[in-house]
Amino acid sequence: MREIDHLIQLLARLPGLGPRSARRAALHLIKNAEALITPLARALNETAAAIRICATCGNVDTTDPCAICADPERDRAMLCVVEDIADLWALERTGVYSGRYHVLGGRLSALDGIGPEDLRIASLVVRAGDGDVGEVILATNLTVDGQTTAHYITERLADCDVKVTRLAHGVPVGGELDYLDDGTITAALRARRTL
Amino acid sequence: MREIDHLIQLLARLPGLGPRSARRAALHLIKNAEALITPLARALNETAAAIRICATCGNVDTTDPCAICADPERDRAMLCVVEDIADLWALERTGVYSGRYHVLGGRLSALDGIGPEDLRIASLVVRAGDGDVGEVILATNLTVDGQTTAHYITERLADCDVKVTRLAHGVPVGGELDYLDDGTITAALRARRTL
Repeated sequence: MREIDHLIQLLARLPGLGPRSARRAALHLIKNAEALITPLARALNETAAAIRICATCGNVDTTDPCAICADPERDRAMLCVVEDIADLWALERTGVYSGRYHVLGGRLSALDGIGPEDLRIASLVVRAGDGDVGEVILATNLTVDGQTTAHYITERLADCDVKVTRLAHGVPVGGELDYLDDGTITAALRARRTL
Repeated sequence: MREIDHLIQLLARLPGLGPRSARRAALHLIKNAEALITPLARALNETAAAIRICATCGNVDTTDPCAICADPERDRAMLCVVEDIADLWALERTGVYSGRYHVLGGRLSALDGIGPEDLRIASLVVRAGDGDVGEVILATNLTVDGQTTAHYITERLADCDVKVTRLAHGVPVGGELDYLDDGTITAALRARRTL
């Protein structure tokens, strides 16, 4: 059982899996050993061998620069700043953004002791000032830390000749007012548009 | 991204992980490549190489017979029948059961077309009749299929000279009547005990 217990312990360290679901996952793997364990082990090793962090934008890919930075079709004039790679993936899934990205690798947080030097902010300022970029879209999360980060970056970019924008705040698509928090409703009211 | 997408697809096949949490898990693995990816891949390969299904009871372990069947301290006179290995693990975690197990590998289900020949029932009847066993505890789940399975096994064991028991039904520890279903309350009322 030593091997199985060790596997359960490692699985339990994945986000979204607690001790109980890690046990279920391990049992599922054991029952489907040939179809799952070996392919998963191979996929993990292949991923570990293949992943590169893009030195330009901080995205993760199998090439450096990443596919987005290397794509000549992507608009060099637009730079979208996200906290995390997961946010980049979320934006990419919409398929509507054709510019490039800059992954901060986190957000400013006094509580967690994360300062500007812990994030990819210096390289962002360099990129924003390289002459190609016309607009920096701040897509940090709408949390207190995310907002703080966005304000800080806006100040740091004050000397660059770029337009700094922020994702719109308001009622999410499919959202019902009755179920929304007051902050969202206030933001939606303040940012109301003429039809 | 081919490697990462493939990893996400495999992770999404684990129980408890959907496409979204599989992406989060993959990203977590990528960010902690050295601490997680390689150890997890190794643990998977080691598990795949080590696991054996116990020919006696159907438990999964790194030895056959499994540690429980091979343990001379475990009571040969008691046999606890469970549907799945996960149920065996749950009972073992309590630490109060000192007998042996018999893992059916599922439950009778007309809907899923699972009959007695698909489960370890024949070998259970053989074990129950070997003279050592004095009591068979039916610990199949309290679902319709689990109850059907328990009734079927009771009939099959009618000719064996063993006592057949069932786990008690009633109010779970910490349970509040107000939140319990009618079936549980009815079962608890019928099985009430004198204090």
